[in-house]
Amino acid sequence: MTVVGMDGDLLADGLKRVQAEVDASFDDLLPVPDDTRARLVEAMRYATIGGGKRVRPLLVVSTAEMYGVSREAAIRVGTAVEAIHVYSLIHDDLPCMDDDELRHGKATVHKVYDEATAVLAGDALHALAFDILADADTSTDPFVRSELIATLGHASGMNGMAGGQMMDMVADEEGVDYDLRAVTRLQQLKTGALLGASVEMGAILGRVPIETRAHLRAYSRDIGLAFQIADDLLDVIGDEAKAGKALRKDEVQGKQTFVTLMGVDKAREQARALVDQAIAHLASHGSEADTLRALARFIVERDR
Amino acid sequence: MTVVGMDGDLLADGLKRVQAEVDASFDDLLPVPDDTRARLVEAMRYATIGGGKRVRPLLVVSTAEMYGVSREAAIRVGTAVEAIHVYSLIHDDLPCMDDDELRHGKATVHKVYDEATAVLAGDALHALAFDILADADTSTDPFVRSELIATLGHASGMNGMAGGQMMDMVADEEGVDYDLRAVTRLQQLKTGALLGASVEMGAILGRVPIETRAHLRAYSRDIGLAFQIADDLLDVIGDEAKAGKALRKDEVQGKQTFVTLMGVDKAREQARALVDQAIAHLASHGSEADTLRALARFIVERDR
Repeated sequence: MTVVGMDGDLLADGLKRVQAEVDASFDDLLPVPDDTRARLVEAMRYATIGGGKRVRPLLVVSTAEMYGVSREAAIRVGTAVEAIHVYSLIHDDLPCMDDDELRHGKATVHKVYDEATAVLAGDALHALAFDILADADTSTDPFVRSELIATLGHASGMNGMAGGQMMDMVADEEGVDYDLRAVTRLQQLKTGALLGASVEMGAILGRVPIETRAHLRAYSRDIGLAFQIADDLLDVIGDEAKAGKALRKDEVQGKQTFVTLMGVDKAREQARALVDQAIAHLASHGSEADTLRALARFIVERDR
Repeated sequence: MTVVGMDGDLLADGLKRVQAEVDASFDDLLPVPDDTRARLVEAMRYATIGGGKRVRPLLVVSTAEMYGVSREAAIRVGTAVEAIHVYSLIHDDLPCMDDDELRHGKATVHKVYDEATAVLAGDALHALAFDILADADTSTDPFVRSELIATLGHASGMNGMAGGQMMDMVADEEGVDYDLRAVTRLQQLKTGALLGASVEMGAILGRVPIETRAHLRAYSRDIGLAFQIADDLLDVIGDEAKAGKALRKDEVQGKQTFVTLMGVDKAREQARALVDQAIAHLASHGSEADTLRALARFIVERDR
């Protein structure tokens, strides 16, 4: 991916480091057993190791770092969030869902293995996420563990990611035309909830009291929307080779997106305005919030 | 179902009461939203309300009751375990997995709705389980919540239910012939882990120290195996109308089960011996363990 300028360096380094750490973390959590469960764990490893931008783990780590959390704990939590993200991608790619053959430039799990293994690998990663968070290695404070789990459970369920995916599917299948308000709501659930949870979980690890997290939530809300507008833009003007997945799907499906509803120029303008607004929410922080600022900019400038 | 004798009354009443409470609990947790997520939540309600024996919630409640836990907390935990059980049934019934059309005498979720909705409904129930456990309404003690989550996460993931399901699938598809030791291991993961977690979570709610839970674990291990042997027997000699699902599948698939490996008579004998042994593990308890004893007997005597 292309990231330029001082911000770019900071971010490129941050992403690279987190990518290596999250890979190592999955490698450690997923030893291949010496029985017929091997295929399941191999599929889980295939889906989790060496792919993905790791934006969510970097959000966890960057927020946690602002509040002096140990790197190790932050990476564990980032790995849990990424496990949820990857499980959702595996299930979304299934033939009965979006029927995708390519993800992060690799064949999707059900293509390499089979559909049943893909369903189970997603399920097992889903359980793994909560297993990681409930472990005392993540935090010795059970209250922190319990808060982390509540936040992730909420973001991934019917009032979060799964709910947003359902709204999306109904639009595809029943030809429901959402207006801008409905598309915004859908995306807040489908993408925004987990991005928001990433920041929130960094703050929970940092024991930031709930009443002083408002600016972080505002930041998350804005980057969540900007992220999805950027995704919709990429679907229209992006390069498939760089994206590592099929594009132009929205157009083929005649789907309402931020881009169809606002047009390319207006959508790009809106994404940039949201990023400026997100960064403004961090005004009370000094240079310790620079990675979050750089991440916000990256979200609209990325090419995959 | 047929349950006879004094035990039978105790158990029939216990099951009936828990069934009503778990139904009410799901009804409360799953309000249908006024947007296009409605189909998802309706599918979740269809799968969870009014069906199933509720053996797992009764295990939680009966164990918790022995240690003076509030009924409300025990039912919440029982509902969480049942959410995991139901999610696994929805996914197991999918065309790419066991391809079943009937469950608890009703059409399976993917038949009534569609495959994508079934995948998502399972996923959302999976998340709901952890959401319930992480909530302070379940226990005000975050350590208890965290222990409950760790126990359930472990039982449902690759080293529990999902792992067992994978072993089972490999046998079906690759024609691997398991011996008695491998079938035992498979079933301990696929069925035993969640039954064991139910008892364990009742004990966790009751703040039973981990070092004095050995007899409960021994009880769970024995009833878990007995439960699966009974299931294999039902597949051979059961009545489809009573079972509410397709039977004789093991034979058609040429699958190794406790019954094919031991024969009907030996299998029945073994199941009864395991139940006696399970009950013997409860010798240190008085009448407060009567429901657990009755449940153990029910497990081999049930006709569905």
